[in-house]
Amino acid sequence: MDNSNIMPVKGIRLGTAAAGIRKAGRDDLLLIELAQGSEVAAVFTRNAFCAAPVIVARQALSSAAPIRGLLVNSGNANAGTGDAGIAAAEACCTAASDAIGGGVVLPFSTGVIGEALPVEKVREGIKHAQANLAEDNWLAAAKAIMTTDTVPKVISRALEIDGENVTITGIAKGAGMIRPDMATMLAYIACDAAIAAEDLKAALNAAVNRSFNCITVDGDTSTNDACVLIASGQGVALSAGNSGWDDFVLALTELSQELARELVRDGEGANHLISIEVIEAESAEEARAVADTVAHSPLVKTACFAKDPNWGRILAAVGRSPIAGLAVGRVQIWLDDVQVLRNGALSPDYVETEGAAVMAKPEYTIRIALGRGQASSRIWTCDFSYDYVRINAEYRS
Amino acid sequence: MDNSNIMPVKGIRLGTAAAGIRKAGRDDLLLIELAQGSEVAAVFTRNAFCAAPVIVARQALSSAAPIRGLLVNSGNANAGTGDAGIAAAEACCTAASDAIGGGVVLPFSTGVIGEALPVEKVREGIKHAQANLAEDNWLAAAKAIMTTDTVPKVISRALEIDGENVTITGIAKGAGMIRPDMATMLAYIACDAAIAAEDLKAALNAAVNRSFNCITVDGDTSTNDACVLIASGQGVALSAGNSGWDDFVLALTELSQELARELVRDGEGANHLISIEVIEAESAEEARAVADTVAHSPLVKTACFAKDPNWGRILAAVGRSPIAGLAVGRVQIWLDDVQVLRNGALSPDYVETEGAAVMAKPEYTIRIALGRGQASSRIWTCDFSYDYVRINAEYRS
Repeated sequence: MDNSNIMPVKGIRLGTAAAGIRKAGRDDLLLIELAQGSEVAAVFTRNAFCAAPVIVARQALSSAAPIRGLLVNSGNANAGTGDAGIAAAEACCTAASDAIGGGVVLPFSTGVIGEALPVEKVREGIKHAQANLAEDNWLAAAKAIMTTDTVPKVISRALEIDGENVTITGIAKGAGMIRPDMATMLAYIACDAAIAAEDLKAALNAAVNRSFNCITVDGDTSTNDACVLIASGQGVALSAGNSGWDDFVLALTELSQELARELVRDGEGANHLISIEVIEAESAEEARAVADTVAHSPLVKTACFAKDPNWGRILAAVGRSPIAGLAVGRVQIWLDDVQVLRNGALSPDYVETEGAAVMAKPEYTIRIALGRGQASSRIWTCDFSYDYVRINAEYRS
Repeated sequence: MDNSNIMPVKGIRLGTAAAGIRKAGRDDLLLIELAQGSEVAAVFTRNAFCAAPVIVARQALSSAAPIRGLLVNSGNANAGTGDAGIAAAEACCTAASDAIGGGVVLPFSTGVIGEALPVEKVREGIKHAQANLAEDNWLAAAKAIMTTDTVPKVISRALEIDGENVTITGIAKGAGMIRPDMATMLAYIACDAAIAAEDLKAALNAAVNRSFNCITVDGDTSTNDACVLIASGQGVALSAGNSGWDDFVLALTELSQELARELVRDGEGANHLISIEVIEAESAEEARAVADTVAHSPLVKTACFAKDPNWGRILAAVGRSPIAGLAVGRVQIWLDDVQVLRNGALSPDYVETEGAAVMAKPEYTIRIALGRGQASSRIWTCDFSYDYVRINAEYRS
């Protein structure tokens, strides 16, 4: 990624620390301080076994008390830790609140499940993180939340609304994105506009549904997933239906999509970013179901790894998708612009070297037309490699 | 496998040939000749893109004409081949019918999708297969239908009903059993009893639902899956509800389960046979849904490969299973007899070395109690290794 265009967001200060939560010598703690008057919206995992920090953060957001900080640690998920985990998350938040002069702090964790969060190490780390709080610390923040990610993910967008500049900057971590239930996805996006709580939540939902949720199956989430949107209130006032709102939501969505694609590009062991587009479906749900089935097929994913246009595997995945009454004679499949399947059988014009050339590209599209209607869906996935197995087999060692 | 106890089935003769369909120098064609009066029942893939031989075989079975032979080839799935594929399957069946002196022959294929079946090579092979038809050819038959399987799978059972011996012998091939939609599963089971068509179908369904369907997700099937049960009519007459029927169905089910477990043991790159048992569910469907989610989690499977009791991954998979209102505080998880999770949190008695010792075993059970009811489900799966990726990345090369 090109990190030369990262823009600070007025009212948002970030500080990091190497707290030694799991490994020594690398930043693993992030403290984000929000200016007074900031609004915060968040979406969380739907996993029934949600982690202690998710429970604590949800509860804090449901109260009326203003949020003044976020505390994120990597190396330990504080999940499967029962009541002791809740108490640990609360103790860390109290320490962070004290460090930034009071107010509610939301906790977030990512890392190994089932081990106790080392609260004392976090408390020590908070002191260091507080000491280096700064508005231009986004890159360090992105690094501190990494687990098996190989690159930090930061993106900024600037737009002008009513003659005033609005800045949006976001960071994210992922990595287990072969199938997104595998690893925690965390994303923190901040802007300097003034936006009321309800509108902020609507903007977040709109952006997430077209970005992070397009690299995940509904319900297929980790114990700790979270995406947070902050409006620091230091700039122009925006509200739904009024001037500039649509531009803001569009910019937010595009930034979220770019972060989401970065997560897939950096998927564990991934070599290809593959867009799965399903068109001519009866409904968006049906299109999504077919896209999900293809995107999660280990056979398709290993063929992508091998750069092998083994289209029979794509066809078999479409065929077992949970939709009723598929007329296979109407199905078309393309690799980018190369038509492979025409009316349910191998296209007479298809040349295998052309299909192989597409699949050798770092990024390409598998497009599937169902011939049933007008609805469509698009999701992003990646290939399935030796390195994926290695990374996940060795994760705890 | 111990292949020393393979018993011929009176009325069933098998012949094989190296037809050179995909690779030279190995048997890739199997002809099975059925005695006059044989009854045949079969179940097939539910994949919408079912292969040409599946279409032809289904149609033949729906007519009243007696089935006198089965023709199976490996190396080419004759799938995604359109009308030409149908014609090719029919041409091969005609040649096989001529070779065995007439009657209907059912076609079956497994191998690469989307390439034309070399009909002339099959025709030549049929001559050789016919020439070596014999009742004691089951092991050679099991070898001829292998694709990426590393061992042939043959099992026999003998039982006595009303003072007469009944012999059941079956063969199967699988291999892509990490997730069974990945590769074609074929199974052929024959007995020498006389059983009417309706009863034979009921016996097959009962056995398949408790065996081959327990290593597959409903609907998650390849283009070519098939399981065939033959009663050659050369021995005792059996019928549902009468003497010996339950014993017969039980023996058939046990034989099918053992073949199914053999398929998982020989799963591509598999090192462990893992039984996933879900108990205390509200319904069998719910239990199965949880078992499927755990069994298909690449994160759980890579942990199994690493012999790492990373129970957080099992917990996360249970938590994202498609069931509503799971009370996580009631969930228990065991690795064999070692309790890992008690009431939703790490068991206080759990010692990680004990969990690791279970996961080092070639075969073990992951048992999950949901605390919701009395229903249960059990499925078999295997781990996810480097070799799985290698085998599927290199399959066409």
